[in-house]
Amino acid sequence: MAGEFALIERLLKQAPAQAKTAPGLLLGPGDDCALIAPPAADEVFAITTDMLVEGTHFLSTDDPADLGWKTLAVNLSDLAAMGARPRYVTLAVSLLATDDSTGWVDQFFSGFTDCAKQYDVSLIGGDTTCGPRSFSVTAFGTVKPQKALRRSGACAQDDIWISGTPGMAALGLTHKLSTIVLPAALEATASAALHHPLPRVALGLALAGLAHSCLDVSDGLLQDLGHITQASGLSATLELAALPPTPPGVDKAVWQQCLLGGGDDYELLFTASPNNRAGIEALATQLALPLHRIGQMHADGKAGTITLLDPHQKPVDLSQLRQGFDHFA
Amino acid sequence: MAGEFALIERLLKQAPAQAKTAPGLLLGPGDDCALIAPPAADEVFAITTDMLVEGTHFLSTDDPADLGWKTLAVNLSDLAAMGARPRYVTLAVSLLATDDSTGWVDQFFSGFTDCAKQYDVSLIGGDTTCGPRSFSVTAFGTVKPQKALRRSGACAQDDIWISGTPGMAALGLTHKLSTIVLPAALEATASAALHHPLPRVALGLALAGLAHSCLDVSDGLLQDLGHITQASGLSATLELAALPPTPPGVDKAVWQQCLLGGGDDYELLFTASPNNRAGIEALATQLALPLHRIGQMHADGKAGTITLLDPHQKPVDLSQLRQGFDHFA
Repeated sequence: MAGEFALIERLLKQAPAQAKTAPGLLLGPGDDCALIAPPAADEVFAITTDMLVEGTHFLSTDDPADLGWKTLAVNLSDLAAMGARPRYVTLAVSLLATDDSTGWVDQFFSGFTDCAKQYDVSLIGGDTTCGPRSFSVTAFGTVKPQKALRRSGACAQDDIWISGTPGMAALGLTHKLSTIVLPAALEATASAALHHPLPRVALGLALAGLAHSCLDVSDGLLQDLGHITQASGLSATLELAALPPTPPGVDKAVWQQCLLGGGDDYELLFTASPNNRAGIEALATQLALPLHRIGQMHADGKAGTITLLDPHQKPVDLSQLRQGFDHFA
Repeated sequence: MAGEFALIERLLKQAPAQAKTAPGLLLGPGDDCALIAPPAADEVFAITTDMLVEGTHFLSTDDPADLGWKTLAVNLSDLAAMGARPRYVTLAVSLLATDDSTGWVDQFFSGFTDCAKQYDVSLIGGDTTCGPRSFSVTAFGTVKPQKALRRSGACAQDDIWISGTPGMAALGLTHKLSTIVLPAALEATASAALHHPLPRVALGLALAGLAHSCLDVSDGLLQDLGHITQASGLSATLELAALPPTPPGVDKAVWQQCLLGGGDDYELLFTASPNNRAGIEALATQLALPLHRIGQMHADGKAGTITLLDPHQKPVDLSQLRQGFDHFA
C-alpha cells in the first residue's frame, strides 16, 4: 500500500479548499505545527477532544463515510454545547494496514470532509498511524467568554429544554444489536440519528447569551442532566408528559430506556430563565428544530437529584433504568 | 473497576496544581470544552497532534510511566521544533478494561504529569474510553509568527545542525528487539533515549529568530532532512566525519543505520546562516547540549537531494540504508 506520507498528502488534497484559506490560519498541515492567529479581540478559544474506537463506539461493518462524518460531528457537538463557533480541527487516525487498498480510508475521509464543509471548519493538522482503528479529533471554536454555556450556570426556577428527539440514536442502536422490528420510516430516522448525528451548532450559537447552562446529550438524558444539576448545585424535576412520546410501533419500556438512558444523541440539553420562553420558542421555528420544555431546576432538594414526574405529578420509579453510558462501568 | 467518570476525576486530581491556575486558562477540564484566552498580542498559537498505538509505537511490556512521559514529550518536541513555548495539552486515551485495577493507568498518568510539570504545560481536557491501548495528545504552544521555525525557511549556504546524538533511540530499539550486546553505560543511554526522550524546548525557543528552518527528528535523520530540502526547494550535503562517531562496542553498519535511518530521537535538526555559528556554539554551552554542524544547504542540484560525503569529500553509497520510519510502508 501507499506509504504514510503519500496517504497524508492524498487525504489533504481531498480536504475542502477552505482548509487552505481559512481566516486566521497562518500555516496549515505539513509542518511540525499549524499556526493560528488569535480570535477576535472579545473572543476566546473553546477546545474539546473526543476519541472513537472500533468495538466500543463503532463496528467494523459500519459505513466508513458515516463514521467519518460522526467522528467530526461529535466534536462539533461539544463546541455547540458551549455556544462556540467551530473553526479548526486536528485529526489523528490509527488505521488497519488494508484500509488504504480497500478504499475504506477514502470513504471515511469523504464523510469527514462532508461534515467539515457543512459546518465550515478547517482541518489544520493530523497524524496517521497503523493499528486497530481509532480516531481522535481535537476541535477549536471561538466564543465570547461571558456568553459561553457552562454546565455550572443553571439557576433555580430555570426551565429545562431539550432539542430534537432524544432517544432516537439509542433506538437505532437497540434495533441494530437486537431483534426488535421498527416501522420502516422510524428505522431510517433512528439509524440516521445513530450514524449521522447533526451537531446543533446553529442552536448553540443562538443560545449563547440566552441560556444559563447547556451540554450535549452523549451519555443519556438523565445522566447528562445529572452533570448540570451537580455542577450547578441544584436539583431538577422532569415532566414525563413533556418528553417525546413513545413512537408508534415501539415497546413503551424500550422507548423509555432509550429516551432516558440512551446516549449518542448529541441533542442540546439546556436551562434558561422562564422569561426567555418566547425567545426559545421563536428559535425552534427559525431553526426548524423542535425544542421541548421538559422540566425545571430547583434550589431545594439534594443537589444532583433528578425526579421524573408522571402526569399526576407523582415520582416515577427509575430503579429499573440502566443509567447512561459509561465505557468503564 | 471504577467507572469512566470516577477515573477521569481521579486522574485530574493527580494533575499538577498549575493545571488549574495556568495563565490564560479560563475554564479547565470538566465541561464540554475548555476555554483559553488569546496569547499575547504579538503571538499566535502553534498546534500539533500525535497518536501512540500499542504494537506500533510501544509494546504491552513497556514501562507505563515511561510511556506516559513519552506520549507528552513527542508532542512537546513538535512545539520545540516550531520554536514555540508549550502551554496547554489535551489527552484522549483508550485503555484496556483491566488498566485501572492493575494500577497501569496511574503509572501512565504519573509519567505524563511528570513531563507536564517539567515543561510547565497544563492538561486542559481529555477523553477516556475502553479499547486497545492508544493515546492521542494535542499540544498548544505560543510563538511570535515571524520567528516560527518552518521547514520551508532554509536558505542556500545555510549550515545544517543537529542537537544531541541522533541514532541513540534507534540503537535502544535495535538492542531491545535483537540480540546485539551493548556496553552497560551505552545500553542505559540508548534505552533512555528510546523510552524517555527529552523534548528540546529550551533549544527551540533560543533558535526562534536565529535559525532559518527546523524540525524534530522523528522519522530518521536523512528522511527528516529530506523534508527540509523539499519544503525549501534546495539540496543538501552531509559530512559523515561531522556526525556522531560509532560508539565503542557497536558494529559500524548497525550504528550508521541507526544514525541515518533511525527515528524516534526528537533531536532538533535545523539550518542557520554561517554568520550565526558563534551564537549557536554559545547556545550549546549555555544549554549543556551538544550541537553538531553536520552539513550545508545548496541551491544547485535537484531539490530534495541529499549527498553524504566521506572525509575525502566523496559521496557515500546510501542504497543499502533503510530510509526512516513509515508506518504504512
